[in-house]
Amino acid sequence: MAAPTYTAYGDSRSGNCYKVQLVLAHCGIAHRWEEVDVLSGRTRSPEFLARNPNGKVPVLERADGATLFESNAIIAYLGRDSALWPQDPWQQAQVLQWQNFEQYSHEPYIAVARFLKHFLGLPAECAAEFAAKQEGGHRALAVMESWLQERDWFVGGALSLADISLYAYTHVADQGGFDLAAYPAVRAWVGRVAAQPGHVPMRDPAPPQVPG
Amino acid sequence: MAAPTYTAYGDSRSGNCYKVQLVLAHCGIAHRWEEVDVLSGRTRSPEFLARNPNGKVPVLERADGATLFESNAIIAYLGRDSALWPQDPWQQAQVLQWQNFEQYSHEPYIAVARFLKHFLGLPAECAAEFAAKQEGGHRALAVMESWLQERDWFVGGALSLADISLYAYTHVADQGGFDLAAYPAVRAWVGRVAAQPGHVPMRDPAPPQVPG
Repeated sequence: MAAPTYTAYGDSRSGNCYKVQLVLAHCGIAHRWEEVDVLSGRTRSPEFLARNPNGKVPVLERADGATLFESNAIIAYLGRDSALWPQDPWQQAQVLQWQNFEQYSHEPYIAVARFLKHFLGLPAECAAEFAAKQEGGHRALAVMESWLQERDWFVGGALSLADISLYAYTHVADQGGFDLAAYPAVRAWVGRVAAQPGHVPMRDPAPPQVPG
Repeated sequence: MAAPTYTAYGDSRSGNCYKVQLVLAHCGIAHRWEEVDVLSGRTRSPEFLARNPNGKVPVLERADGATLFESNAIIAYLGRDSALWPQDPWQQAQVLQWQNFEQYSHEPYIAVARFLKHFLGLPAECAAEFAAKQEGGHRALAVMESWLQERDWFVGGALSLADISLYAYTHVADQGGFDLAAYPAVRAWVGRVAAQPGHVPMRDPAPPQVPG
C-alpha cells in the first residue's frame, strides 16, 4: 500500500480543521489524519512550532516534510484542481473575498463564542468576552443572510471553497449561542451544503472531557 | 482619454487600503482612486453597503459596476498575472497562508493598536483595549522574525503578495506602539520591500484632523 501523500494535523472539534476534512473528502485525497488536541498544549511544543511557527492547527505536511498552515490556504491548495475552485479569475477572487471575510469578520466572533461556551463551558470569568462576541457574530450572519437572499451559493452557481470556509463554523453557530432561526437564507444554505455529494459531517462536535 | 478600468475606494491612512495602492503601482494598473474617510460613516451608508455589505474599505469596482471587497482578495485579483503571484501551486498556497496569518494573527492587533493610538489619540476609555493588543502584536512580529531569520522574502526568492500584505501595517507598527528594534530581521525586510522598484510610500500616514 502506498504511503499517503499528505499528513493533516488537526483537532476534529475545530471548524478550521473541519474545512480541511471537508475538502479532503470532496476531492477524495489520500491522507493520514493526525488528531491534535488544541487543549493539550501540543500546538505550542517545539516539534509542532517547527511545522507552524504560529502554533495552530490545521497543518498540512507533504511526504517531503514541507508544511503549510492556515486553513483557507490549505484548502485552496488541496482544492485547486477541483470544482470547488472556479475557473474565472473574478470568481476566484470572490472565493478569497469570502474566505478573508470568514477569518476577519466571522470566525473571531462565532468560533470564539463557541469555544468559550461549548469547549470551556462558559466559565464566569469568560462571560464578558462571550457577550462581547455576540454582536460581531450577528453582524457576520446578517451579511451572509443579505448575500444569500439573492443567491444559492456564495460564488457562482455551485458549491465552492467559499461555502466550505463559511459552513465550518456557521453550521455549529448554535454552540456559540447564535440562533439561526433569524437567518432563514443562511439556514437553507446550511442545508444545501450538507446535502452535497461528498459531504461529511463534523467528526466530533461533542464537547471535550474537561479534566476535573 | 479612456475611462479607467477600475475604481478603488479606500482611506489612504489604512494599511488594508495601502496594500491595494502598492499593487496598483507595482503592476501599473490604470484606475481612479476615490478617497473614503473611514471616520466619516460613509462606509455604513446604503450607497456604500451596496458595494460591500460588510461596510469596509477597500473596495474595487469594475467598469460594469461589479465589486470586490477584502484587501487580500483585491490584490490577489489585481496581481494575478504579475511577478507578485508565484507560478508554483505550493508557493501560491504559501502566499495565501501569510495573507490569512496577516488578517487573523497580525492585523487585529497591530492595525487596531495603531488605530487607537494614531487615529484616535488613545483616549482613556481605550487604554485597556490598547494594552490587550500589545501581546498579540508582539507574538505576530516574533513569528515574522523567526521566518525572516532564514529568508529574505516570505515566499520564494522575491517580493510577492505575501510581503505586500504583511508590509502594510508592519512598516507603521511603531504608530501602534510596537518598537521594531527587537525584530532586526523584520526591520531589514521592511527596508528591502521599500527599496523595490515600483514601491510607493503610504500616501497619508499622518493622523487625521479630529473635529474639535
